Amino acid sequence: MKKKIVVIGGGTGVFTVLSGLKNYSTDLAAVVNMSDDGGSTGILREEFGILPPGDIRRALVALSRSDNKILSDLFNFRFNKGAGLTGHNFGNLMITALERITGDFASAIHEASKILSVDGRVIPVTLNNSKLYASLEDGTLIKGETNIDIPNHDGRLKIKKVWLRPGAQINPKAKKAILDARAVIIGPGDLFTSIMPNLLVAGMKEALRASKAKKIYIVNLMTKFGETNGFSAEDFIKVISDAIGGESLDYVIINNKMPSLARLKKYAEEKSLLISHGDLPPKPTPIVGDFLRNRELIRHDPDKLAKTILSLI
Amino acid sequence: MKKKIVVIGGGTGVFTVLSGLKNYSTDLAAVVNMSDDGGSTGILREEFGILPPGDIRRALVALSRSDNKILSDLFNFRFNKGAGLTGHNFGNLMITALERITGDFASAIHEASKILSVDGRVIPVTLNNSKLYASLEDGTLIKGETNIDIPNHDGRLKIKKVWLRPGAQINPKAKKAILDARAVIIGPGDLFTSIMPNLLVAGMKEALRASKAKKIYIVNLMTKFGETNGFSAEDFIKVISDAIGGESLDYVIINNKMPSLARLKKYAEEKSLLISHGDLPPKPTPIVGDFLRNRELIRHDPDKLAKTILSLI
Repeated sequence: MKKKIVVIGGGTGVFTVLSGLKNYSTDLAAVVNMSDDGGSTGILREEFGILPPGDIRRALVALSRSDNKILSDLFNFRFNKGAGLTGHNFGNLMITALERITGDFASAIHEASKILSVDGRVIPVTLNNSKLYASLEDGTLIKGETNIDIPNHDGRLKIKKVWLRPGAQINPKAKKAILDARAVIIGPGDLFTSIMPNLLVAGMKEALRASKAKKIYIVNLMTKFGETNGFSAEDFIKVISDAIGGESLDYVIINNKMPSLARLKKYAEEKSLLISHGDLPPKPTPIVGDFLRNRELIRHDPDKLAKTILSLI
Repeated sequence: MKKKIVVIGGGTGVFTVLSGLKNYSTDLAAVVNMSDDGGSTGILREEFGILPPGDIRRALVALSRSDNKILSDLFNFRFNKGAGLTGHNFGNLMITALERITGDFASAIHEASKILSVDGRVIPVTLNNSKLYASLEDGTLIKGETNIDIPNHDGRLKIKKVWLRPGAQINPKAKKAILDARAVIIGPGDLFTSIMPNLLVAGMKEALRASKAKKIYIVNLMTKFGETNGFSAEDFIKVISDAIGGESLDYVIINNKMPSLARLKKYAEEKSLLISHGDLPPKPTPIVGDFLRNRELIRHDPDKLAKTILSLI
């Protein structure tokens, strides 16, 4: 029987993990953040009242088995012309149109999955329409994921707390996937804006605790100014552990491979630094090694992650 | 060997003929009007400088072999919300995005055909970007298909002449399809705005004359105020015969079945009347009969047309 693996997150992090694991014989489900409110997604949320399609789209593309490369290019295509179209992503428009046609978001994802020949499931973490809020250490309140993500606040101030309003309930399909899974992978991804919104959903902590799955958290490679400025690996792990309950994580995957200075340079301009670690406690079990891809942007290598994950479960 | 049939036209007329013929074992090509400049298509033409996607889309849907009904619903979906999206048709947006991704219109149609599992070919009548012009009997000049189609001119005035500017050359693929065909079907469709723009393309008349195909013109069911006000079947046939050369048509298909008065009533409100015929000359051979579908809008019955066409070739 194929190993059931659930990947929880949002943005490119989910894409990386899924696109690595899909090359092995696994039964994959992506549980995806529903708090995105920026760009094309934000406009569609506001104008159509739908759940955010952006992270759903990335997960669908990651799980597509179609050998038609144009289809994923199309799904990721962003209009850069046209008074009303500029900035809109084609895949987001498709999910929106399918939601109108079928009458609900889950059916829209199902139909988009068929068109893209998706092998696996993409599950919104919640079906409730909520916004993400954050409070900073100086008491500043920030409303909306985009405003936290692309800070117009002082990026050196630490985020003290994030929450969803109105409160959101876990999607029963996400709960079932987690309960049935052999492994649950959390991250990588923007800690407060892509990962935490999943863990804040009511019922998520309980589902993770009740599940017999190995729970593996993949620590980010780089800090993000305004969100995780100055964070060490331990800081990341603490935020996640506090959110889901101290004993719940089994493994944490931490990169210790140094990228070239040339690759680090453009990150430095954005005050984004390589994440390091000190003395790690024995629990959750740290898996420290080279998880870096060799070229271009500093990202995890999908295959290195997949191999490590499969060796742990 | 399958019978090669080319259908020339635009709008819902092409859709009707193709969706009838596709149920028989035929090798179908649609040669499609490229002068549409209204609505979603007009905006995309203006903003992206592409050829008009609207009639291409209708032909693609007609030829789709996909058993996924949602896919054709999606392709025909029109956004009715959103500041920038309202009025845009999803299929048009897909063709536009594919044109950007692949770099040309023909490849975009090819890729859209793959996604929709199209059996047959959809061929723009020209690859030149032209506008349709018309002059009325009082000398008024009208620019743009939409302005002819949805007249803000006096609808009782006859259209004296239509032409393309800049002049357009026949697409070599359209020419080849016509030369190779066993039958070429012209119409039905709006005479001056969907059918004639195809025949005005330089090289079309010569291709039709050089082809050994049987040439069959399907006369419309109803007149259109502002375009064919007061036209008889003979008037339609004369416009087509004059455009392609007197001897070129082999058959003309004319409906003589009267719809119910209830069905005619809403057309009367738009000054659209049932087309009748008087004494028809023996050439082109008139095929007069019941070609009406039984329900809803007054349209040709796709299967009645298909059966008659196949009996003639």
